[in-house]
Amino acid sequence: MTSGLDSKGRETAAPIDFYFDLISPFGYLGSIMIERLAAKHGRRVAWKPLLLGVTVMNVMGLKPLPKTPLKGPYLRHDATRLAEFFDIPFRYHGHDNINSLAGLRAFVHIAERDAETATELMRRLFAALWTKGRDITPVDVVCNEAVKLGLDADDIREAVQRAEVKQRLHRAVDDAISRGVFGTPFFIVDGEPVWGVDRFWMMEHWLTHHRWRQDTGDQRS
Amino acid sequence: MTSGLDSKGRETAAPIDFYFDLISPFGYLGSIMIERLAAKHGRRVAWKPLLLGVTVMNVMGLKPLPKTPLKGPYLRHDATRLAEFFDIPFRYHGHDNINSLAGLRAFVHIAERDAETATELMRRLFAALWTKGRDITPVDVVCNEAVKLGLDADDIREAVQRAEVKQRLHRAVDDAISRGVFGTPFFIVDGEPVWGVDRFWMMEHWLTHHRWRQDTGDQRS
Repeated sequence: MTSGLDSKGRETAAPIDFYFDLISPFGYLGSIMIERLAAKHGRRVAWKPLLLGVTVMNVMGLKPLPKTPLKGPYLRHDATRLAEFFDIPFRYHGHDNINSLAGLRAFVHIAERDAETATELMRRLFAALWTKGRDITPVDVVCNEAVKLGLDADDIREAVQRAEVKQRLHRAVDDAISRGVFGTPFFIVDGEPVWGVDRFWMMEHWLTHHRWRQDTGDQRS
Repeated sequence: MTSGLDSKGRETAAPIDFYFDLISPFGYLGSIMIERLAAKHGRRVAWKPLLLGVTVMNVMGLKPLPKTPLKGPYLRHDATRLAEFFDIPFRYHGHDNINSLAGLRAFVHIAERDAETATELMRRLFAALWTKGRDITPVDVVCNEAVKLGLDADDIREAVQRAEVKQRLHRAVDDAISRGVFGTPFFIVDGEPVWGVDRFWMMEHWLTHHRWRQDTGDQRS
């Protein structure tokens, strides 16, 4: 079985790729759950940005979930009860048209030098939006969280307007699409794509047994 | 806790409503899983027909899942591995444009007098399509399975063309929509709506504890 670390504590398994967009409540819940699961199995999580506006609307040709009849109200109820079930702080914000571009551009900019700090900034933005109801659209809000991590606000303010940073985010989203990623949370674990905050039971099984069949009769576990 | 039966074996809990459309592989997998779960908790399952063409395309304004880029191929892979995980016989058929109208009209017609036989016919049609790859669109295929249950083929052939039977199916679908049902498998258990074949862990918890919180510290279980 792959613990992710060898006997000297060195990493042996690839990280679990976690595709996120800050605007999704399920992405927020998934961001906390995947780190709990990865920690339990000694695996690392690699956060990767996704723009739901690109995948849902442009590529799949669907409408945003909150604006989809029947499914929208269902998912709103569902996120609330999942948060309760998973024991994760959560409340709906009252903002329309939350935009994650500044946050995700800051992510790719910072991650180039320091992936862990970039990830920590995303955790803070997720929490700002989904526990405090703060609109994370303005770059000022992104900078406000960034300075708490010792980052330079002016550097971020300049970076999110730079063509090269915008390009890097677009390339990241294109890479995601080329791997079949379309929603969030979306995980790729040892090559297996797993979509949804409701699939941790399945990933738990995969991380333990590295196959889908549940019986152990004719296979070594 | 609600076992579904009182000390004399009489039913006390409402059945779990299960909304299905024969054309969905997830509906097929869900039909088997919900009966396993219900049996374990001494609950009855009430099968209720849904037309995905109506909810997905007309009401939600989305395209059929198999024709949705990215999501279509993902879900195809997903149904196969879920069947393996759940140990359910399953294979993809090669038919385009499977239509469940004849099957579901037969269901509402037979269910009026005998819900259990109507349900058994649906189990057979699900298996015909999703294990044997048989196109269940023609009324002859529906009748073929029906006669094995001692039903009268001529009666069914006539019923599926009758305006009153068509109306009954439409009313059933309208009722489903009015309860917020939009996909399959969709369950309503003690008033809680639960969508998806990946939510049995959640329904298991609900059937056992009748709440979403997992801690038992300050509540009687």
